Amino acid sequence: MNEKEFISFESDYNNGAHPAVLRCLVETNPRPSASYGDDCWSRAAREKIARACDSPRADVFFLVGGTQTNAVVISALLAPYEGVVAVDTAHINVHESGAIEGTGHKVLALPGHNGLMDPDELASLLEAFHADPNRDHMVWPGMVYVTFPTELGTLYTRERLERIHATCRRYSIPLYIDGARLGYGLMASDCDFDLPWLARHCDAFYIGGTKMGALCGEAVVFPQGNAPAHFFTHVKRQGALLAKSRVVGVQFDALFTDGLYFDIARHALDMAARLRRLFVERGYEVTPSTTNQQFVLLTPEQVEHIARHVAFELWERVPGDARNRDLYRFVTSWATTQAHLDALAAALDTMP
Amino acid sequence: MNEKEFISFESDYNNGAHPAVLRCLVETNPRPSASYGDDCWSRAAREKIARACDSPRADVFFLVGGTQTNAVVISALLAPYEGVVAVDTAHINVHESGAIEGTGHKVLALPGHNGLMDPDELASLLEAFHADPNRDHMVWPGMVYVTFPTELGTLYTRERLERIHATCRRYSIPLYIDGARLGYGLMASDCDFDLPWLARHCDAFYIGGTKMGALCGEAVVFPQGNAPAHFFTHVKRQGALLAKSRVVGVQFDALFTDGLYFDIARHALDMAARLRRLFVERGYEVTPSTTNQQFVLLTPEQVEHIARHVAFELWERVPGDARNRDLYRFVTSWATTQAHLDALAAALDTMP
Amino acid sequence: MNEKEFISFESDYNNGAHPAVLRCLVETNPRPSASYGDDCWSRAAREKIARACDSPRADVFFLVGGTQTNAVVISALLAPYEGVVAVDTAHINVHESGAIEGTGHKVLALPGHNGLMDPDELASLLEAFHADPNRDHMVWPGMVYVTFPTELGTLYTRERLERIHATCRRYSIPLYIDGARLGYGLMASDCDFDLPWLARHCDAFYIGGTKMGALCGEAVVFPQGNAPAHFFTHVKRQGALLAKSRVVGVQFDALFTDGLYFDIARHALDMAARLRRLFVERGYEVTPSTTNQQFVLLTPEQVEHIARHVAFELWERVPGDARNRDLYRFVTSWATTQAHLDALAAALDTMP
Amino acid sequence: MNEKEFISFESDYNNGAHPAVLRCLVETNPRPSASYGDDCWSRAAREKIARACDSPRADVFFLVGGTQTNAVVISALLAPYEGVVAVDTAHINVHESGAIEGTGHKVLALPGHNGLMDPDELASLLEAFHADPNRDHMVWPGMVYVTFPTELGTLYTRERLERIHATCRRYSIPLYIDGARLGYGLMASDCDFDLPWLARHCDAFYIGGTKMGALCGEAVVFPQGNAPAHFFTHVKRQGALLAKSRVVGVQFDALFTDGLYFDIARHALDMAARLRRLFVERGYEVTPSTTNQQFVLLTPEQVEHIARHVAFELWERVPGDARNRDLYRFVTSWATTQAHLDALAAALDTMP
Repeated sequence: MNEKEFISFESDYNNGAHPAVLRCLVETNPRPSASYGDDCWSRAAREKIARACDSPRADVFFLVGGTQTNAVVISALLAPYEGVVAVDTAHINVHESGAIEGTGHKVLALPGHNGLMDPDELASLLEAFHADPNRDHMVWPGMVYVTFPTELGTLYTRERLERIHATCRRYSIPLYIDGARLGYGLMASDCDFDLPWLARHCDAFYIGGTKMGALCGEAVVFPQGNAPAHFFTHVKRQGALLAKSRVVGVQFDALFTDGLYFDIARHALDMAARLRRLFVERGYEVTPSTTNQQFVLLTPEQVEHIARHVAFELWERVPGDARNRDLYRFVTSWATTQAHLDALAAALDTMP
Repeated sequence: MNEKEFISFESDYNNGAHPAVLRCLVETNPRPSASYGDDCWSRAAREKIARACDSPRADVFFLVGGTQTNAVVISALLAPYEGVVAVDTAHINVHESGAIEGTGHKVLALPGHNGLMDPDELASLLEAFHADPNRDHMVWPGMVYVTFPTELGTLYTRERLERIHATCRRYSIPLYIDGARLGYGLMASDCDFDLPWLARHCDAFYIGGTKMGALCGEAVVFPQGNAPAHFFTHVKRQGALLAKSRVVGVQFDALFTDGLYFDIARHALDMAARLRRLFVERGYEVTPSTTNQQFVLLTPEQVEHIARHVAFELWERVPGDARNRDLYRFVTSWATTQAHLDALAAALDTMP
Repeated sequence: MNEKEFISFESDYNNGAHPAVLRCLVETNPRPSASYGDDCWSRAAREKIARACDSPRADVFFLVGGTQTNAVVISALLAPYEGVVAVDTAHINVHESGAIEGTGHKVLALPGHNGLMDPDELASLLEAFHADPNRDHMVWPGMVYVTFPTELGTLYTRERLERIHATCRRYSIPLYIDGARLGYGLMASDCDFDLPWLARHCDAFYIGGTKMGALCGEAVVFPQGNAPAHFFTHVKRQGALLAKSRVVGVQFDALFTDGLYFDIARHALDMAARLRRLFVERGYEVTPSTTNQQFVLLTPEQVEHIARHVAFELWERVPGDARNRDLYRFVTSWATTQAHLDALAAALDTMP
Repeated sequence: MNEKEFISFESDYNNGAHPAVLRCLVETNPRPSASYGDDCWSRAAREKIARACDSPRADVFFLVGGTQTNAVVISALLAPYEGVVAVDTAHINVHESGAIEGTGHKVLALPGHNGLMDPDELASLLEAFHADPNRDHMVWPGMVYVTFPTELGTLYTRERLERIHATCRRYSIPLYIDGARLGYGLMASDCDFDLPWLARHCDAFYIGGTKMGALCGEAVVFPQGNAPAHFFTHVKRQGALLAKSRVVGVQFDALFTDGLYFDIARHALDMAARLRRLFVERGYEVTPSTTNQQFVLLTPEQVEHIARHVAFELWERVPGDARNRDLYRFVTSWATTQAHLDALAAALDTMP
């Protein structure tokens, strides 16, 4: 395939950096710097992030990728005998090659509901665990992990997250939010809270960079200055520390200057809403998602035709669908343009 | 400190990317790409590296940083009951926060000799282990790790490496070479082998990018196509896989185009030789090193004076030195210029 | 509680050793012996077990307890990127405090059906995994674990186990059987295979001692001489090797002399069948189990009354039962007598 | 070899239980009991041990073997980024197959001096670590491990242990004492402290059972009631929990009734002193040891002759000895008799 020409809705990491992010990398390149997190851009980015979170005491760390970030944070927050509660469709449970178990901890899976955790089911799990006479022979639920937005493009409401957070506090276990696509969630039309609110309703979260316009990098935030002791060495030990820490620092400095991070989100969400309409107006069935990931049921013939025009991915087989359809994913990002959407529309409109 | 102005010999990772590497990142940025290692630049870079190694069957993988690379490769090559033999000054034994032990494996330390492993001592260790009636109660030496160049800037000769490799083959255990600064070793005036020779005399090695002009990235090479089964998933599980794999792919593509990798090494080595002469000609004591890291014995007064002009690092306390000197490190890179050396010379010449 | 007097159906490990086993410990006690598995009784027991399995090439190892045995065997059979498939009610998934995850591996849970794995669901999981384009980002299913009998007292049929085994072979992954209560399964009235047949239809299993009349000890069998390389050191590294290995060796020597192991099973099964009848004849609802664990639905009032006479355990809360009943477990062993059953019968017959 | 007849000085675990311990196992065997540590004998033994330690608040746990005990205690006391300081000859560093590294932690080795740690070297290591600007890239020394008696039969004095303990307190890291042969140390003629003193000068230790007359079992003591949270589940997760916990409980109940534990030690020490004299009086060179392990330099001819009469073990090759001697170990226990010593004396007196 000619990569120069092709139009891809495969993911939000199938492109380079947002031009403004790239520009900062270029402009700062000639300057020498401290390493291992102590460069001036990382320092500036940490301050800007703390400000954006309205969390002046926040501890902020820059790591490189999402799987790594989850493994480092989760293993730093858990005692050896504890596991992390997550829904079955959670990234850590399915698509991270057992990275959490690789650090010695079990993922305790609850059923997902369109990717979301049910606060009542969480409360029941914790209540049942602590009432179980055999609990000392079991894995202790030591923290809760949710993704925002979820892997299925859905969002926690303020009320749902509050209830999960309250349950965590009742049992004195931390709530950690995987924000690989955080901006796409916060800027979504139906999101009823903002970044400072989120920072007040969890114990740790990360602000995804890779899928939000950076080349790489994720920003871990412990909003109350509550980073585990020697978290730096946790990061180093798990190979997540960049010698040239500026690589991530410069990018987050750019992303959190003049609201770029949120602008990028808004653009992708706008593109996603239009993309969704293309399908809905033509009678295709889509799942509920207000974020930059859209999921459409397609027949093999439809797939074959569309794939001649634009790239996209199979998300999930749907056994027993009457029309033999499966679920496909279309993703937008900073790099998605109206021209891309037009190409998709053209494909749909030439469907045999 | 004003980072724009200051001159630093602290490390070879205290700067941005080599301009030619950066240019490739900029030029390729607008293009969409496959992810997780399958982008066109990663593919091209893998081919170029295999060619540079004269190892057409080589398996090449791109990871992000050095500690991570060592942990992933070593844990993939060892059985649970095995450890890795290294010298006591080896990076994995001292400065990686126990990343190897974090994967469940012991570092079996031999004494270092100016950073180098003694082939006879390696042979003795293996012989003694296999002759030990208690060996089943011990950690099996399952592979050998050497750094080239070493942490002290010294180099293995062809003969020394051949003997280590032969011992490894005798015991059927792999030899793995940490090449975080590989170019600086291969291009050193007294190196008596080249990259293809090295690729024929070990089972795995990595070509360092971070310290050789990239923003980040290391290229792991299994020269005989002998990557452990499902090495990709090993990489993913340990959080070492970039979604935007192109970030490293593009950079290595640049580094292995028109010999840039080796040009960068030559420049830094030239600067290091001049730097060394600055000290030697003025009667300072230096350790034997022909690579881009130079180590100088300095008194506290000398340190205080020089540090007013350029930045550098304490390497090691030297207890009991008659003149109260300690060992300091000066490092050159693609970013070192004659003007930097002139500033250092001026500092030395104004020593009170 | 006066432990001398009380009658307990709580478990099959709430007692000492079977008298014949104890006698052997006493008789052999004065003799010196080799250690770490090389004593004469361990050697004899290994031979007797191989013979009982009709597997002359079998590798047999003695470990101390069940959780430990599962962790050692499973971690020795898996590559780092692999997990173990088991049903959700499996001991390793619920009641071993995350021991498997502690060795770095995920338990991939299938739904249990009265404790049993469905061969079709296993085949589907493996088929789906290998068809999944994202499989390299997932945990590889590297082996299958079943318990025989299951935690719910149910049994695999010959046909069901054959199909599971055939699926394992198709995907070249080992089948491992947790036989903590192996004898109670093999001797059950409806078991349609014997020990040699079982040994031919899996890659590893263990013969439980602790719950079958020993003080402690489990015998791991690799029936085709297919123990992982240096399994001894795996055992040692995980703290599962007894210095005085004779402790387990003597007991298994006793258990596999003159069929004692199977006699113990038959006695406990006979007691369990009678116990079951006590409940059934009086109209209590029991779950299907032909082994030494019987599960009965009881109201709080019934529990309170019975518990005044004999000890037993809550197995599982049954939310929403019309009569507010929960599931209770009654277990028999070599130590159960007709007098114990009479006491239980008396309790039932004096129910207010 | 006819195991009934042969006389062995190979180890203190080459025999059965002390007759009084065995008698308790037999007498208690018919009684039912609680499991998993809650049986009446375990409870009694915990109280007796706390009393013997003069530590009424002590937490006491029973595990099965020494390697396991070290791995469970050390991994429970360390944070992920910490390692354990020990001398190079320490059991955990040499003869436990990397069990500590298997839990993710490095053993930070100091040079041993006849098996002992030098308090000054420990203080220097900790001081140097905390003064090292790179400490965040290193393994944090998180606890100290010593063996008492050491692997070479030597003993810490009160003063030496006080200084090590004081250093640990200065750095707020726990001191843990491996007492696999604790009794042999405490009862030795030149030991200048007792069990309560030891309990006041460390944070955790274990009282070895296996090598002191039990069939198996070690008692972990946290003398100030300072067991890590949920230590029970740590034990379970690492497979160190016996279902029939009474097996160890009964034995420790016996060992700590009427001072049996110390009587056993005294007997073995008396035998060891006589054994030592047999060699010394005949001009053999022995290493300094006042405990039940004696080390003798022997020529190959001497070994060949003695081995025809009694069994013993090679401890260490001594390269370059003028008379070609190596170091051999002779161990006594509760089972050693004057007749055994007479046989050894006869062997020495018939030396050709």
